[in-house]
Amino acid sequence: MRGAWLRPGADLEVRDDLEEPIPGPGESLVEVGLAGVCATDLALAAGYMEFEGVPGHEFVGRALSGPLAGRRVVGEINAACGACPVCAGAFGLDGRHCPHRTVLGILKRGGAFAERLVLPDANLLPVPDGVSDVAASFAEPLAAAFQVVEQVPLEPGGRALVAGDGRLGLLIAKVLHAEGWDVTLAGHHAERVPPGVTGATGLLDADHAPPLAERFSLAVEATGAPAVLQRLCAHVRPGGALVLKTTTGRAVPLDLTPVVVDELRIVGSRCGRFEVALEALAAGRIDVESLHQHTLPLGAAREALDLAGTRGVLKVLIDCHA
Amino acid sequence: MRGAWLRPGADLEVRDDLEEPIPGPGESLVEVGLAGVCATDLALAAGYMEFEGVPGHEFVGRALSGPLAGRRVVGEINAACGACPVCAGAFGLDGRHCPHRTVLGILKRGGAFAERLVLPDANLLPVPDGVSDVAASFAEPLAAAFQVVEQVPLEPGGRALVAGDGRLGLLIAKVLHAEGWDVTLAGHHAERVPPGVTGATGLLDADHAPPLAERFSLAVEATGAPAVLQRLCAHVRPGGALVLKTTTGRAVPLDLTPVVVDELRIVGSRCGRFEVALEALAAGRIDVESLHQHTLPLGAAREALDLAGTRGVLKVLIDCHA
Repeated sequence: MRGAWLRPGADLEVRDDLEEPIPGPGESLVEVGLAGVCATDLALAAGYMEFEGVPGHEFVGRALSGPLAGRRVVGEINAACGACPVCAGAFGLDGRHCPHRTVLGILKRGGAFAERLVLPDANLLPVPDGVSDVAASFAEPLAAAFQVVEQVPLEPGGRALVAGDGRLGLLIAKVLHAEGWDVTLAGHHAERVPPGVTGATGLLDADHAPPLAERFSLAVEATGAPAVLQRLCAHVRPGGALVLKTTTGRAVPLDLTPVVVDELRIVGSRCGRFEVALEALAAGRIDVESLHQHTLPLGAAREALDLAGTRGVLKVLIDCHA
Repeated sequence: MRGAWLRPGADLEVRDDLEEPIPGPGESLVEVGLAGVCATDLALAAGYMEFEGVPGHEFVGRALSGPLAGRRVVGEINAACGACPVCAGAFGLDGRHCPHRTVLGILKRGGAFAERLVLPDANLLPVPDGVSDVAASFAEPLAAAFQVVEQVPLEPGGRALVAGDGRLGLLIAKVLHAEGWDVTLAGHHAERVPPGVTGATGLLDADHAPPLAERFSLAVEATGAPAVLQRLCAHVRPGGALVLKTTTGRAVPLDLTPVVVDELRIVGSRCGRFEVALEALAAGRIDVESLHQHTLPLGAAREALDLAGTRGVLKVLIDCHA
């Protein structure tokens, strides 16, 4: 099979001799259509998780076997064991936190930058007819954006600050706005600020702490630079929430004294529920297609990652049929 | 007036020429009896907050004026403006987070290591008759310990890890145990482990992440060493809470990737409600007196701070009458 291959210490390479993925019991084979490049893929290529295999976890494709055979599908990336206490709902958790999980293109499971992939049947969801392939390929990051509103409930008149106007930051700003938050987006590209959202280029460059009336109840760190958390602390009101999205595996100097003094909450946020994202796409509530800038063929997967890592570039898709 | 005086870059000194504190409208003058030395006092002496004035914020005394004149009192340390949105209850907050607050012996208000202090009338609470002076002097740190259970609700069978068997860590372990948590205390002194609590010296020295069944729903960082947070992340179950108590004003290297991957919550925790602490002391629910090791006269305030900063020493009190 043809696909992109990553191993620690080496550049991504496209190979034609990859082993065909074989579905086990309760698993489906999926023909990948479009696959999206995400910051986590760039982190993996830089050594995060010491991943070896086919990367890629954002995709839309067609099921070739299993209960949804022949249907257009997207897929929840965490493949859970289904048998442990967490999978049974311990602590209100679900399979997204199964300690035995594999994760598509991230942890012990080949991913989407290939002609075909395998996921448990239970992970696949049919794509509603009105949702384009490009839009459906955003289901995974859009679900991750909706996870923020599942973790931090909207408060009346609530003001939210999103740090980072890259791929994920823009999705989070759109979702928070759609859910009723008064959203400010701190980034470097005034032209990217979505309708209804307040742009604030330079907000995080200022060195002074704003007065209480200008602070936010919620700030989301989606810059990819974990040190930004330090500056965000000064922009959150006492008792407010800071949501973290960045996973780099790197330590940065942080003084969490303001978190104690202002009794802030730092909330780690990873994957979200696909159902919520697909419903929003089907209803046309969130525009994602404007984030799509480039589509490269699978043979140019390495160039796709380089492009996605270039400052100013938004969503790069890989066409795994081409 | 006699009292201890701190200024940036200088050692604590005891002076006999301090200005007498004068109560403003709605404020009471208090004659200090016993005052406790806390890690925050040691941080202030090391330059935190660039505080200049009389330090000390844990005390029991006697009101010399105001509505409680003649009564034995303790006092909430945050003196709020009473007029701003936070004081009026915005965001569910109260005067403890008033942006215009002064804080006894910490921020723009002289503290308890002196013969007399001034606090707003509303901050003072009468001490129940059955509570000794020594026990009452623990009201402030005990309230701070109870704040943890106000912020993180008990879950059935919930397992909590307290890191640090110093003054505050021991109080937190006792409170969590009294409130129904299954508590493990990670520290260096097996002999300090309170009844009903599991001791675990060395737990945080181990370099491996424990399996899920051994992880905790709640971990409290009360070591005074902010870098311990990194190791604690591995001991908290997905979706669990990490409570921070340490305020040093120093940055340490932290990789918060596990907070994102396991969707942990980091909860900053500062001051608590005195009513809860006084009720627990009056009911004899929490033993605090066993933490008391030394009482030094006000003239030896500097030695009291040195002693409190000595490894292995628990609570040092300053007798401000002596």
